[in-house]
Amino acid sequence: MQVALIRYTPQPEETVAAAARLCYSKVGAMEILEKMDPGQADRLLSQLLSSGHLSPFEHVSFTFAIEGLSRAASHQLVRHRMASYSQQSQRYVSMKKLEWVTPSTIQRKPETAATFQALVEEVHRFYCRMLELGVPAEDARYILPNAACTNLVMTMNARELIHVCSVRLCLHAQWEIRELFTRVKSEVEVVAPRIGAELLIKCDRLGYCDEKESCGLYPTRESTPQPAAAR
Amino acid sequence: MQVALIRYTPQPEETVAAAARLCYSKVGAMEILEKMDPGQADRLLSQLLSSGHLSPFEHVSFTFAIEGLSRAASHQLVRHRMASYSQQSQRYVSMKKLEWVTPSTIQRKPETAATFQALVEEVHRFYCRMLELGVPAEDARYILPNAACTNLVMTMNARELIHVCSVRLCLHAQWEIRELFTRVKSEVEVVAPRIGAELLIKCDRLGYCDEKESCGLYPTRESTPQPAAAR
Amino acid sequence: MQVALIRYTPQPEETVAAAARLCYSKVGAMEILEKMDPGQADRLLSQLLSSGHLSPFEHVSFTFAIEGLSRAASHQLVRHRMASYSQQSQRYVSMKKLEWVTPSTIQRKPETAATFQALVEEVHRFYCRMLELGVPAEDARYILPNAACTNLVMTMNARELIHVCSVRLCLHAQWEIRELFTRVKSEVEVVAPRIGAELLIKCDRLGYCDEKESCGLYPTRESTPQPAAAR
Amino acid sequence: MQVALIRYTPQPEETVAAAARLCYSKVGAMEILEKMDPGQADRLLSQLLSSGHLSPFEHVSFTFAIEGLSRAASHQLVRHRMASYSQQSQRYVSMKKLEWVTPSTIQRKPETAATFQALVEEVHRFYCRMLELGVPAEDARYILPNAACTNLVMTMNARELIHVCSVRLCLHAQWEIRELFTRVKSEVEVVAPRIGAELLIKCDRLGYCDEKESCGLYPTRESTPQPAAAR
Repeated sequence: MQVALIRYTPQPEETVAAAARLCYSKVGAMEILEKMDPGQADRLLSQLLSSGHLSPFEHVSFTFAIEGLSRAASHQLVRHRMASYSQQSQRYVSMKKLEWVTPSTIQRKPETAATFQALVEEVHRFYCRMLELGVPAEDARYILPNAACTNLVMTMNARELIHVCSVRLCLHAQWEIRELFTRVKSEVEVVAPRIGAELLIKCDRLGYCDEKESCGLYPTRESTPQPAAAR
Repeated sequence: MQVALIRYTPQPEETVAAAARLCYSKVGAMEILEKMDPGQADRLLSQLLSSGHLSPFEHVSFTFAIEGLSRAASHQLVRHRMASYSQQSQRYVSMKKLEWVTPSTIQRKPETAATFQALVEEVHRFYCRMLELGVPAEDARYILPNAACTNLVMTMNARELIHVCSVRLCLHAQWEIRELFTRVKSEVEVVAPRIGAELLIKCDRLGYCDEKESCGLYPTRESTPQPAAAR
Repeated sequence: MQVALIRYTPQPEETVAAAARLCYSKVGAMEILEKMDPGQADRLLSQLLSSGHLSPFEHVSFTFAIEGLSRAASHQLVRHRMASYSQQSQRYVSMKKLEWVTPSTIQRKPETAATFQALVEEVHRFYCRMLELGVPAEDARYILPNAACTNLVMTMNARELIHVCSVRLCLHAQWEIRELFTRVKSEVEVVAPRIGAELLIKCDRLGYCDEKESCGLYPTRESTPQPAAAR
Repeated sequence: MQVALIRYTPQPEETVAAAARLCYSKVGAMEILEKMDPGQADRLLSQLLSSGHLSPFEHVSFTFAIEGLSRAASHQLVRHRMASYSQQSQRYVSMKKLEWVTPSTIQRKPETAATFQALVEEVHRFYCRMLELGVPAEDARYILPNAACTNLVMTMNARELIHVCSVRLCLHAQWEIRELFTRVKSEVEVVAPRIGAELLIKCDRLGYCDEKESCGLYPTRESTPQPAAAR
């Protein structure tokens, strides 16, 4: 899998901070931006995050080139609807050369891994034969496995990145999509370290695990004392 | 493939008409609904559609049970983001019994169809063997084909149904998703005939084909005379 | 202000539960719905809510007729984007009879309240005079106050209702929009008591107050001990 | 009104073109971007637009600082939900200095304009008096007129800009929001001329007027011959 940040809104952290400040300011965004210094931006971002006031994070977007992701993972990925995707089409692109992903639980068993590879190759040979026989690529691909690789361009704003990472960096997420967002986080950290640092697992924000069973990082909510409302 | 309309907003056409009328009315929606008769609703819907004023159609939603759709088609389906999906998980459900879709271009070639079936069955046997060997279902499924069936619950509002049908009923759409929305349209027609009748291919609304090549239903735009602006 | 639930997805709680179950089931939604009993639905909803698995709540929508809301409040309301609105137009509807909202902090000061009323009436007389002088309604309305009433039809799915109520039922929300969602909650409770009970202030779910200052219901997060990650 | 483009996705047109090409390419977005030249980008954008394949335009966003817009117009603006807004709050910002918008139909009548101004000033004095008397700003503002100015930061992607301009540049749109998007278009044209050129009124794309009455630029659809389907 390859993940590269190819475009992003310039000066993302100042942009978020200026948009947030505008809501409480007598002056407009131009003047706020001129006077903004990095220290201020940093403090504002912290306040926004601790109070859950996340809408200003929508003003900055990040666009990634993703290559070598399995279609098992891409089918999960595109379920996140607050984002934009352009994906390599298996209808229009003939997969004469097939790349695929082998999960590590299979790789670790040499015999199983060998059968996996042989079977994927047999499937691919049959795919190519169907193309030769005049079956359209959009139909021949029905035989291709979930393991087949795909390429995407994905754009998400910072608010959605915070949300998606909160669920997809969790150890309960599927390993390939967790790897994808681990790389997404690394890419964001390079150009927007303050935003990158906020791409956190949900438990790091909640202070407890809301899954049925904890991975051990935090106890589940049931096992931690709950405050009562002063009603 | 099975498609059943399992829930929908009651009296959908009166609801759309009342919401539209509210925008231009001195009185509120309760009073408008009381006085609305079907003839009025019908005329209002026609006006909304011819003027492209589609937001009132968002107030009514349709929920479908979809069974036996291939994951090739479901991956396309969930790219429509103005909708809600719950989909059978290949991570959590072990596919010990596999159902799959065979495209008609393959079915029509007996020898190819036989190989297709034999290969899917071999893939499925290997999937089951991997489960026995302790490979998690979420990893074993990497070998499963795009042809494997999935079940979904899908909810779309009428505005989005109008949009999605406009592109997915087109002969250029992939055959399985076209079949899906042909059935969706049939289901809607039973309970909301006026809305169902508006689930049209885009060319029926545009008056021309905007694809590169026409299927013959309408000429492409290039081959039809274009009016000029009176500037 | 008047708030009436005019439409909703029938059997909303069974619908959410069936969609959730589908994700983990070998069978489709039709069969699940047939076998669902209210006790099961109830348990499933509790599990979804405690684990933050909220997407199945999107399959059920609620449509409200809202009357007599100020445009100060409606401007805030329509900032919630995961919803559908049809709103009375001040461009097309002449406000020859003006209704308006007087905040209780003004009503409590008799002299101020009297001036408020006299001034709104003067503004309205000038609005009517402008209409007589041929000023279009869409321009005459520039003089109308934020207090002027508006009517809307609003549709939200249950997931968004859970989110919006979490922020708008908070004592820090503006009083008129808090009143609106208090009524929305009451309406939902009548037809979907389990969902209605989940329309909670955010602090009731978090166990702490994430605002700068607490209203007293829960302490702020800073004043409560935070668990550390077991890293 | 002041509208300034303060941020945008760098090299927007190449980005759209690369994302579009990826869908039909064996290689990933990195390689496509390296080889893309402006002429290719231009041709690809034309093909996307003529075929209505608009999703690649979502990958580029434009962020505007908007100042001096009336709240009459901002209430309309924020109804466009595929966008992000940060708006100056009348709850938290005391409007001790009020700026407002006077429609030209009022400005053109000197006597009416004078009364308009005097009345807004009287309203503002009463607003300030209420603040002194301890009425919270969030309640005192109920007296403020629709004409009162507001500041916003708005982010829209290019697909949504194409859509919003198609309806808001129309002569039937309200004059102030039409002026806003005329300026938005001008700003985009400077940095992305090809995208800016596509920010067109809907009739320029349809070839007819879909409003009840035409402004004269194009005839209505009813008055133009309609092609029939070859069914």
